[in-house]
Amino acid sequence: MPNFYEDNDDLRFYVEKGLDWAPLVGLTEYEWRAADGPESLEQALELYGDVFTLVGEYAAEAIAPVARTVDTEKLRIENGEVVHPEAFDALFEGMRDMELYGMCLPRELGGMNLPFLAYNVTIELIARADVSVVAHYGFHGGIAMALLLYSVMEGTTEFDVENARISSTRFGDAIEEIRQGLTWGSMDITESDAGSDMGALRTTAEQDDDGAWYVTGQKIYITSGHGKYHIVIARTEPVAKADDPFGGLAGLSLFLVPAYAGTAAEPQRTVSTIDGIETKLGHNGSATVAISFERAPAELIGKRGEGFKMMLLLMNNARVGVGFESLGLCEAAYRMAREYASQRPSMGKTIDRHEMIADYLDEMRTDCQAIRAIAMAGGFAEEMAQKLRLKLTFFPPEDRDEKERTEREYQRASRKARRLTSLVKYLGSEKAVEMARRAIQIHGGAGYTKDYEAEKLLRDAIVFPIYEGTSQIQALFSTKDTLLGIIRRPQDFVRRAATARWRASTASGLPARVARLQGLSFAAQQHLVTRIAGGKFRELRGVPLTSWGTTLTDFDPKRDFAPALLHAERLTQILIDVAVAEELLAQSEKHPERAEVLERWLERAEPRSRHLHDVITKTGDRLLARLAEQEEAEGAVAEAAK
Amino acid sequence: MPNFYEDNDDLRFYVEKGLDWAPLVGLTEYEWRAADGPESLEQALELYGDVFTLVGEYAAEAIAPVARTVDTEKLRIENGEVVHPEAFDALFEGMRDMELYGMCLPRELGGMNLPFLAYNVTIELIARADVSVVAHYGFHGGIAMALLLYSVMEGTTEFDVENARISSTRFGDAIEEIRQGLTWGSMDITESDAGSDMGALRTTAEQDDDGAWYVTGQKIYITSGHGKYHIVIARTEPVAKADDPFGGLAGLSLFLVPAYAGTAAEPQRTVSTIDGIETKLGHNGSATVAISFERAPAELIGKRGEGFKMMLLLMNNARVGVGFESLGLCEAAYRMAREYASQRPSMGKTIDRHEMIADYLDEMRTDCQAIRAIAMAGGFAEEMAQKLRLKLTFFPPEDRDEKERTEREYQRASRKARRLTSLVKYLGSEKAVEMARRAIQIHGGAGYTKDYEAEKLLRDAIVFPIYEGTSQIQALFSTKDTLLGIIRRPQDFVRRAATARWRASTASGLPARVARLQGLSFAAQQHLVTRIAGGKFRELRGVPLTSWGTTLTDFDPKRDFAPALLHAERLTQILIDVAVAEELLAQSEKHPERAEVLERWLERAEPRSRHLHDVITKTGDRLLARLAEQEEAEGAVAEAAK
Repeated sequence: MPNFYEDNDDLRFYVEKGLDWAPLVGLTEYEWRAADGPESLEQALELYGDVFTLVGEYAAEAIAPVARTVDTEKLRIENGEVVHPEAFDALFEGMRDMELYGMCLPRELGGMNLPFLAYNVTIELIARADVSVVAHYGFHGGIAMALLLYSVMEGTTEFDVENARISSTRFGDAIEEIRQGLTWGSMDITESDAGSDMGALRTTAEQDDDGAWYVTGQKIYITSGHGKYHIVIARTEPVAKADDPFGGLAGLSLFLVPAYAGTAAEPQRTVSTIDGIETKLGHNGSATVAISFERAPAELIGKRGEGFKMMLLLMNNARVGVGFESLGLCEAAYRMAREYASQRPSMGKTIDRHEMIADYLDEMRTDCQAIRAIAMAGGFAEEMAQKLRLKLTFFPPEDRDEKERTEREYQRASRKARRLTSLVKYLGSEKAVEMARRAIQIHGGAGYTKDYEAEKLLRDAIVFPIYEGTSQIQALFSTKDTLLGIIRRPQDFVRRAATARWRASTASGLPARVARLQGLSFAAQQHLVTRIAGGKFRELRGVPLTSWGTTLTDFDPKRDFAPALLHAERLTQILIDVAVAEELLAQSEKHPERAEVLERWLERAEPRSRHLHDVITKTGDRLLARLAEQEEAEGAVAEAAK
Repeated sequence: MPNFYEDNDDLRFYVEKGLDWAPLVGLTEYEWRAADGPESLEQALELYGDVFTLVGEYAAEAIAPVARTVDTEKLRIENGEVVHPEAFDALFEGMRDMELYGMCLPRELGGMNLPFLAYNVTIELIARADVSVVAHYGFHGGIAMALLLYSVMEGTTEFDVENARISSTRFGDAIEEIRQGLTWGSMDITESDAGSDMGALRTTAEQDDDGAWYVTGQKIYITSGHGKYHIVIARTEPVAKADDPFGGLAGLSLFLVPAYAGTAAEPQRTVSTIDGIETKLGHNGSATVAISFERAPAELIGKRGEGFKMMLLLMNNARVGVGFESLGLCEAAYRMAREYASQRPSMGKTIDRHEMIADYLDEMRTDCQAIRAIAMAGGFAEEMAQKLRLKLTFFPPEDRDEKERTEREYQRASRKARRLTSLVKYLGSEKAVEMARRAIQIHGGAGYTKDYEAEKLLRDAIVFPIYEGTSQIQALFSTKDTLLGIIRRPQDFVRRAATARWRASTASGLPARVARLQGLSFAAQQHLVTRIAGGKFRELRGVPLTSWGTTLTDFDPKRDFAPALLHAERLTQILIDVAVAEELLAQSEKHPERAEVLERWLERAEPRSRHLHDVITKTGDRLLARLAEQEEAEGAVAEAAK
């Protein structure tokens, strides 16, 4: 009987020994203080393993066999509601019966209290079977957890500290409905003229005299937007300055908007309208809807004007989630290609023995392991950060030293999560497209037909680099964060670069190779920072990097980063090469069998990073000059028109 | 009124001044000896320009508007015949009325006698509107020309040398039917267990006592295989040696097999059956059928056992054709992306001003020009070679010196065509996939929906790197050809490498940069040759390259090339970087305005080739060792089983 968990050695490595589960499970289980929880780390991990085995089997035996049906049977609107194919609904009844929607919810809210990282593992398992199923699945437990977290952050969840349990929570009813599988939620952000640019959002929320909020406006491209609970970002304040393209973010607030009364089975829809379902290239089982709200009663989440900030709170989770989703598709593509290539004879041998195909398969295998390495590390860090923050808020250690240690630990996890999540989203989504395409190519003519599953994988994968922030947005984010970090803490950068140089020359073998790779990354970063400073502050030329801090007071990253942004994707790719190498090096220090994975990674990452460094440091001036000229010419035209 | 020819400056450059049309048109017009032909080069070029303008308008005004209909309305089988959507049939009636099917046929066969290169230009123009239309279009004029060429080569076409016209030709009836648009043809090669590996073909042809041939077997993935005239490759001799995977090629012969009597409008089908239409990812307007022949009367083309060789005769044309087809799609993707990006605002400016998007668009533009540069050069060389060969066969110059000069010219064109065609096919098809994906990415979420055309481009593009020889087959071909060339003519290689070195150090500016790029390519080639020789002939180590020729007598490229084949795609990519640079350099020497195109190309090609050289010379040993181990282990198992 196939099982997508049991047949995956690399995934099981993380569950069985690759991750340091103790602190994460300790935090999740309130340091083992709850009466109804597992009694030990071993017991907890056994439970997680059981869930993965169950979901791995369900993915292989129930979901994968109907993935083509889910892809081809069209979604339709009947009486204003979206209707799924029966096979799709049956899958979700199955997942409800397995109680998967409450996987991460605390036991006192009816859940299993598994770490969010365990949920991400189930995302990978289900995605290997079908990504449109996983998309809709994510808008059950994911939204329930989001509502709980928002309530905790805004202070509307009461903790019974003594018994380590939640005694009440603001959105408890919604969470319970979702947990029971009666409905689901969605994140309503995009509008027709505001995709990556959230400052341009136009949906509004107004307050009546009693202080009640009402949301009005249209949202588009809303995944699973046909459910009841919508987390909507809407404008509550006017734009601060008309000509400031970024001014619009401060006027946004977050709301919980029920789109209808009742449940998904019998919705009473009066304040919202489903305007249409998108016909897409893939993800055909997952409904992407346009929805209009007309004075829909809404509950403000957090503070007025903090919508963008509140949204960012969950952004890392969402991006790591897409990383795991992409990883599931990559596994499917790799295994499908490997299986076909091992069967297909050509020129006297099976094609997996032909050098070019063997090379493809080898890279696909390594890339799957690379994505998983940083997805696990990123998900782990993000969850540690969130849970340490909760601990510091609700159960702060009484001992001052321990409190400080916990705070440092929180800072460290938070920085690591922030650094890795964009890289996970970028790598996973780009590789999903590449691997799906390779799976088709390895199938030859057969891969172009609908008789094989490869073409569906490509259609499904293409959206990954677009949703939850395009690859370009991830690269922008990573690049700005990295370079601003240097500008703000130059001593730290100089120290890290020196450490890498020192290690590259004193260590040997794999640690030296990883240090050299880090050196390439630092060199590329320094080049870009110098380039920015050279354009912006000519007086800084010749001033050592460590003395910049005091000079750079009027530095505006949004305006002054142009030279670096041209190379943002390339810098991000180097950052990924290094981040994966660092994770695999740390693994191989504890688990010698992982050295072989790191070697495979370095074999490709080393020349790639040399190349990226080469392009970053030697090209781009022509294009930057052209863009500057265009801007100047338009400025002159605008000036003349005044 | 949009016109896909008039709006394309880079394409018009080739028609108006970029190509040396005089010798090609001279050969096409039998050195102006025909009574009914154009009177001068100018008159001929004016005619070609008129045809391009007409087709450019038809593509923009008639084809592009129904491309989505052609994509979505399903092909179906009715009474055993494939039925196209009405819109599709109407397009082909239009093209028939424009007499496009006879574009390259001699005037005495009812054609316009345009060069084949002109036909390729129309392929690009139509492909920019819809590639499934162009695929079916190609199986009209393309097959008519193939039949004429086969007849000429086998000596069944009579030339009236004095009046420079064909007086009779063997397949005249078929050619005339196709020219009139009554039916079309196809190339029937692939079978279910024989794709790239033609030695494994199983369709057979048998002779009865009167010497008549009959073909029996099933062919799959036959583009436009629902027409009347099938050029079928079939087995006429048994496989020479049971264990020789390449032995099967010598037993193949080529046949013309009418699949039915009558015309496409009223076919009487008795000897063949259409077994099905493939449901594909894209190219939905183009029928890809499986067809069975049951003792279908067939005419042997050329000599028995020469099927593979005869097929190769047209292979270069077909590959250049896919290059132009891919180029049309690239133009569509680039223009679509540019248009969208110039309209879409984000963060206070249109996204074409965002550095990363500007970089994408700049590369797409440059790549379109690069594909066109080598597609034009490859198509030109192939046609020159074919026509010089015909001239040498039918109108050989009486003057001995001139005859020798013509022979050298033929050899030169033939070598260049052989070198470029794989590169054209590789670059065009890979870039089509890349650019279509970028067009989607630049559209963001909108690009994933069927409301925009970007997703169709990707679905259509994915087959280019698969049909007419996969990208891996092109790379194999290029790599073997390049390396065998070195082994067979080492002096020549050493001389060319020395010239590049010399030029890199003595020239300056663009010529020096191109010479340095050539140097990288030569270095990569030399590395691979040395690697092969090192594995195969240890005694050659230390022996200078120029002395190898005499030693390498038992060299078997099929067996001994493994170390090079691992890097075949990478070497091919360097060969492309160099070939494009060489063409653009030659252009810029005559037309200074082309220097800017070359500069844009070099800016990206230089670091890319450095990278490819880096990977070729530094990686791969691990994988090669693993493949060798596997082979050895299997050999041992096979040995033990005896």
